[in-house]
Amino acid sequence: MMLVNGVADAMIQPTDRGLSYGDGIFRTLLLRDAFNRNWQRHYAKLAADCLRLGIVCPEASLFEQDIIRCKQEENVGVVKLTVTRGIGQRGYMPQQAAIPTRIVSTAPLPAYAPQCIGDGVAVRVCQLRLSRQPLLAGIKHLNRLENVLARGEWQDPDIMEGLLQDEAGYVIGGTMTNVFAVRGRQLYTPELSNSGIAGVTRERMLGFAVGLGLSVRVTQLSLADILESDEVMLCNSIIGVWQVRELGQKRWQKGQYVKLFRALLETDND
Amino acid sequence: MMLVNGVADAMIQPTDRGLSYGDGIFRTLLLRDAFNRNWQRHYAKLAADCLRLGIVCPEASLFEQDIIRCKQEENVGVVKLTVTRGIGQRGYMPQQAAIPTRIVSTAPLPAYAPQCIGDGVAVRVCQLRLSRQPLLAGIKHLNRLENVLARGEWQDPDIMEGLLQDEAGYVIGGTMTNVFAVRGRQLYTPELSNSGIAGVTRERMLGFAVGLGLSVRVTQLSLADILESDEVMLCNSIIGVWQVRELGQKRWQKGQYVKLFRALLETDND
Repeated sequence: MMLVNGVADAMIQPTDRGLSYGDGIFRTLLLRDAFNRNWQRHYAKLAADCLRLGIVCPEASLFEQDIIRCKQEENVGVVKLTVTRGIGQRGYMPQQAAIPTRIVSTAPLPAYAPQCIGDGVAVRVCQLRLSRQPLLAGIKHLNRLENVLARGEWQDPDIMEGLLQDEAGYVIGGTMTNVFAVRGRQLYTPELSNSGIAGVTRERMLGFAVGLGLSVRVTQLSLADILESDEVMLCNSIIGVWQVRELGQKRWQKGQYVKLFRALLETDND
Repeated sequence: MMLVNGVADAMIQPTDRGLSYGDGIFRTLLLRDAFNRNWQRHYAKLAADCLRLGIVCPEASLFEQDIIRCKQEENVGVVKLTVTRGIGQRGYMPQQAAIPTRIVSTAPLPAYAPQCIGDGVAVRVCQLRLSRQPLLAGIKHLNRLENVLARGEWQDPDIMEGLLQDEAGYVIGGTMTNVFAVRGRQLYTPELSNSGIAGVTRERMLGFAVGLGLSVRVTQLSLADILESDEVMLCNSIIGVWQVRELGQKRWQKGQYVKLFRALLETDND
């Protein structure tokens, strides 16, 4: 299903600033989660990202109406929410009066092999180094050419994700995931004030840590820090959480924490 | 006029990667220049930008057919050419087989005051610092949120442009222009291997310099370097070239070179 401002199968004006400049934000979540506690988290993040770009975020009720229509058609799958600054005049100047464009679309669940959950996944390190832009860091905005170029670096279907470092060599995340590392009873995840996307599942993982007896360190993590960790995990709203089994020459045994986090992600969504 | 893949008044699929990820490139030029020597330069830059992103660039003849249709409707104005990677499946992975989307649209000439040419323009320094990404630097791609945020920093209609620095404080350009500075018989312009857009008018200006007895330095330029210059100029394909008259507390007299460059830009377009 595809709804543009609530209209089924509608199209986008070529002058929409989402197309002209990537001037907008998006989120992807499981349809299943579209009306539980996670929906509140996703909408809050959508609204916060809009606020940072000065885009008027459409009311939650508008998305909810759209999602209800999507769920009437299919109940399993992925829903993507996009907000752009709307139709624009020529030029970069963001118009205060712009009416945002709201896009809600569904897609089937991606066909990841069950072993991704059972055995963990093989991961590579991307060549591309992420740029640093504090004004855009953390936001899931539509300027995603870095992710596109990074994901284009490999074709091997057995490699499920690529890790991205910034210019200084600090690991920021995967092309489509946030990254966590466990060492002893510490849970590490990259600090995202200059690069990367701060996802909703990342927030949820951080929230679960204390209950699992882990102390949280949101900090700069080098590739060496990752390689020396007991357990490395990748997360997003679609995959939940995967353990990293393989990174370059490094192999990890099955971890203890990934299944605990997975169980919490599965149950804390009512 | 608005042509999408040659179809008048067509719309964009919401799944177009130009919208999803800003996965594409664009150019803006005067309709007047759409079939002279500058057209060859613009198409070459369009094709080069596509090549760097791995996008199949549509043949020049397709754009030419579109532009002929535009010129039948209006002969004065601005034409914008956009190429996106095309309709995408879910996910960042760029599909080899994607068919690019070609968009050609026209707009009236922007109504800049004649004094911009006669007297020069007032310019400010933007707060936003441009990020560094060598893989994207120089390309006129659709990831332009930095330009949008920078242009949103001021509303004063008497300020015609904002200068952008990188993290290290080097001046990269304006939000919509390339910048040049003259000192003695040297012409300076920022080196753009990490940030910024390398425009066609910039290339043309560099080509004219030798004929004007100026030696060219493409180098790192600080704000202090700009302020200490004899003459500072801004250029793009729509405005041609403007002298900077005012930047913060600094005022410049009318320059000697801006009118020479303007004359060359005007005549070398047949």
